[in-house]
Amino acid sequence: MSVTIGVFDSGIGGLTVVREIKKLLPTQPLIYFGDTARTPYGTKSPETIIQYAREDTKFLLEHGAGILVIACHSAASTATSTLKQEFSEPIFEVVTPSIEQALALTRRKNIGLIGTRATVTSDVYEKAIHARLPDAKVYSQACPLLVPLVEEGWLKTRESRMIVKKYLRPLKNQQIDTLILGCTHYPVLKQIIQEKIGKKVKIVDPSAEIAHAVYSYLEAKDQLSEKSHGLEDRFFVSDLTPTTQEVVQCFLGNRVRLEKASLPKRE
Amino acid sequence: MSVTIGVFDSGIGGLTVVREIKKLLPTQPLIYFGDTARTPYGTKSPETIIQYAREDTKFLLEHGAGILVIACHSAASTATSTLKQEFSEPIFEVVTPSIEQALALTRRKNIGLIGTRATVTSDVYEKAIHARLPDAKVYSQACPLLVPLVEEGWLKTRESRMIVKKYLRPLKNQQIDTLILGCTHYPVLKQIIQEKIGKKVKIVDPSAEIAHAVYSYLEAKDQLSEKSHGLEDRFFVSDLTPTTQEVVQCFLGNRVRLEKASLPKRE
Repeated sequence: MSVTIGVFDSGIGGLTVVREIKKLLPTQPLIYFGDTARTPYGTKSPETIIQYAREDTKFLLEHGAGILVIACHSAASTATSTLKQEFSEPIFEVVTPSIEQALALTRRKNIGLIGTRATVTSDVYEKAIHARLPDAKVYSQACPLLVPLVEEGWLKTRESRMIVKKYLRPLKNQQIDTLILGCTHYPVLKQIIQEKIGKKVKIVDPSAEIAHAVYSYLEAKDQLSEKSHGLEDRFFVSDLTPTTQEVVQCFLGNRVRLEKASLPKRE
Repeated sequence: MSVTIGVFDSGIGGLTVVREIKKLLPTQPLIYFGDTARTPYGTKSPETIIQYAREDTKFLLEHGAGILVIACHSAASTATSTLKQEFSEPIFEVVTPSIEQALALTRRKNIGLIGTRATVTSDVYEKAIHARLPDAKVYSQACPLLVPLVEEGWLKTRESRMIVKKYLRPLKNQQIDTLILGCTHYPVLKQIIQEKIGKKVKIVDPSAEIAHAVYSYLEAKDQLSEKSHGLEDRFFVSDLTPTTQEVVQCFLGNRVRLEKASLPKRE
């Protein structure tokens, strides 16, 4: 029996995760929910993010999802343990594979993390890394301007380069050897980030790791769709503007039809 | 009888309007609602902004407001006519006084407008200016990065200067003589904006004008509070983070106690 993958994000940045999932699982049915009416999550409080993540999860389950992927790092850092308590479906998220990959890559145990304010202040990465590698040093930097820079489409401007450089300077000074991209928007700036942090620093982008984890799970449960099921993937957003339509391609690599969904029901 | 002024905004930028109101009306009771759980509005669609503005208005009325001030330019541009149809209370908003002031100041009839994407694409300013001054030229520029720059506290950095300069260049090239600050956050950057657009350009900041309009209305209706009513002003936000607390002073000029309100009830 083939199961539908449900992916949610605070907006459309999570399509970078969908892109990797579709590479490995092109025929598996998928449904996406981007909470564009309340984006961003990363500047909001843990209570609010947990409430939103709960509503997003319900939306996906009501629309047939059998397994869940939290593509939003702010939600993954803040809401995963609550969602795992409240829902019985398997939940994959972006934090765990980032940490696995960072632990595999680091040599000097000096790991950097960039993300939204919510992600950085959650301390989830730091705790999980220290549980596995107690003498590792973790340096975090909140980069609130990077999401709006990407959404403005200023991908290779001088201003973007300066801002990335400014944010990365403290991490560079700490001589990190591995840098976790703790936000779905950052892979789009990967080239500039690599340039500013230095060529030798390994960059961790968890999208591909998540896709592998989901693939392994479905394979083990014998729930892989081996042939096309005839259903189209569906992409819902809670708000739809011309700008949203425009930037989809930048994250997903191709155009899809976005459907406007009613806001998830409140508790 | 003294009436309570209700002010709403997508976040806490609207406190720049409260600051001006309190200068003129220090003893008039006031209640503020900042929708920080769903901020920003300026990147969202007209339908979503109208829905949020309706909920914000109901919140203020339920908490005793007798007259309403829309401090958010995105909501004022998009939702004012709907709110005026749906509610009988007097509604003041930031667009009308901006236009009055711009028309009074312009010499060459070349007027610039900066704001969020929602404000700029609403065309409300352009239509209202043309209704009064048909041969005026209105040049608009959406500046989505300025709100996050202010909220990040990067008020006088080199990066902020470069970004302001980049946004203003097309308006400078059009030789505008008057520039409307179409967002509550922009007065905080006024000095840099003046520097980059040129000293001769008149800058329109509608906060003071709104305060005058509200004062005149209350005076005419004999509803001015002449002495302190013994009630404290109340400042509600739909989400509360440490960053919100920190930046309040930058907008309001002094610290106040923010109260977390439940999200307004959905229709």
